[in-house]
Amino acid sequence: MFQLLDGKAISLQIKDEIANEVRGYTTKGMRPPHLAAILVGEDGASKTYVANKEKSAHEVGFISSVYRYSENTSEDELLKVIDFLNKDEETDGFIVQLPLPKHISEQNITNAISPEKDVDGFTAINTGRFVIGDERAFLPATPMGIVNLLQRYNIETQGKHCVVVGRSNIVGTPAAVLMSRNNAHANCTVTLCHSRTQNLADITRQADILIVAIGKPEFITADMVKPGAVVIDVGIHRIPDETKKTGYHLCGDVKHSEVDEKCSYVTPVPGGVGPLTIVSLLQNTLKAYKLRNNI
Amino acid sequence: MFQLLDGKAISLQIKDEIANEVRGYTTKGMRPPHLAAILVGEDGASKTYVANKEKSAHEVGFISSVYRYSENTSEDELLKVIDFLNKDEETDGFIVQLPLPKHISEQNITNAISPEKDVDGFTAINTGRFVIGDERAFLPATPMGIVNLLQRYNIETQGKHCVVVGRSNIVGTPAAVLMSRNNAHANCTVTLCHSRTQNLADITRQADILIVAIGKPEFITADMVKPGAVVIDVGIHRIPDETKKTGYHLCGDVKHSEVDEKCSYVTPVPGGVGPLTIVSLLQNTLKAYKLRNNI
Repeated sequence: MFQLLDGKAISLQIKDEIANEVRGYTTKGMRPPHLAAILVGEDGASKTYVANKEKSAHEVGFISSVYRYSENTSEDELLKVIDFLNKDEETDGFIVQLPLPKHISEQNITNAISPEKDVDGFTAINTGRFVIGDERAFLPATPMGIVNLLQRYNIETQGKHCVVVGRSNIVGTPAAVLMSRNNAHANCTVTLCHSRTQNLADITRQADILIVAIGKPEFITADMVKPGAVVIDVGIHRIPDETKKTGYHLCGDVKHSEVDEKCSYVTPVPGGVGPLTIVSLLQNTLKAYKLRNNI
Repeated sequence: MFQLLDGKAISLQIKDEIANEVRGYTTKGMRPPHLAAILVGEDGASKTYVANKEKSAHEVGFISSVYRYSENTSEDELLKVIDFLNKDEETDGFIVQLPLPKHISEQNITNAISPEKDVDGFTAINTGRFVIGDERAFLPATPMGIVNLLQRYNIETQGKHCVVVGRSNIVGTPAAVLMSRNNAHANCTVTLCHSRTQNLADITRQADILIVAIGKPEFITADMVKPGAVVIDVGIHRIPDETKKTGYHLCGDVKHSEVDEKCSYVTPVPGGVGPLTIVSLLQNTLKAYKLRNNI
């Protein structure tokens, strides 16, 4: 019998804890933490993401603000906003929702964010702090969410073999670094696999903990999973489906219909890792607030 | 029959190439690249390292300077020197020889170095640039030396399984990231092992390329190595030995007396990875010089 790793429930639990902590500060007369977001253009998915972040921020008692700019905003204008937010005493952390319009360099914009306010953890200096193990680092949202899930379910990681499939800068590579760290919620032997990996199934079958972030629908099949493994599915895909009112159904990078029954624990899609990523952003913002206020 | 990966020979070859390139610039009337080093205190090993770096810099036609300070120098004084070197138009890159006296924070000192001059690649921002894949990054010396060795011997890495033993910030972790990268001299499936790894021999035996940086004398024995593997030994230890004039002999993290004959390629100790690390520093300094002069 496998157990579902209920990301939705864990995210509510963590949000509750954050809300309690925030109430503790505001009842002492402090202002609440403040998360800001910069949104450029009219991309539907980006608007939804930002709206969800705003909603979650409000739920835990944060102040939330969204700076909206048209598709035609120049890189210089955007850099001025970032400079303002970097200096603004009333903002603890902020994010720039990606992707940006093509005439704007995402690298220039991201790296202009002060590392003390970079709650997405996307700047080079933050990545470096994270890899070096500097305590001020803001962890990247998805790997941090995965660690939260494993930790809340008391899943043993010490000395386990963790296989990560996918080497992106946002998920796979930082997840591999994080899971290899010498601390209570990591200390795994970690194998990082990707599109060029030979005999992938031979490797994934060794995984006590399998983290899949390859971006291919139902890529991981039952024959690739060791009985009793913990499987974390980071993928989420919309598959056209005429039988659904919406015209699609969601699936992950793992073929859950056949994999789940081999697992000890497995994340559902949706409702697994997804809800934890916004929580990571809230946790990072609270951390920024506490560092700023020497709490 | 195994082949030794002759780090000494490769380092001379690369130094020759650097010297030629430098001559090309100086004959056009440009000043040569300039590498500076800050040396604090009287630690014997540190003095030897700095002297070797100075010698190598001269060999390739660089300008080299060493800023020497007493054991009692304060952190503030050192930060002022770093500020000077950061701004100095005549210095392309500089290093602070570690370890520093205990009253000085190595983290504060390291992170004060401008990322454009951080040719050791020790600052957080440089680590981040390296992990993100920013082309301006200066690669850490030892992992860069390993890639140089593999490349110069035309050793195929694409899709191979590379096992790294040891997770230090300076060698193991960055070597794992580097070998997993999507480029011609990497693209390996990478497993990062460490002190908490269970069944280590089962994992090292899977390695097509085995990189050992665990800091334990002759730790890797023949039974831990797959026949035909490429073995890179980063360790170097002085073992007391009365039969030697010096009173010691050198050994690595690999038990070469029994491992070498199982390998296709193996680095000797000394004369393997060691000579390449100073060359990495020269390559990074040349890169800094070229970036500074828009070459």
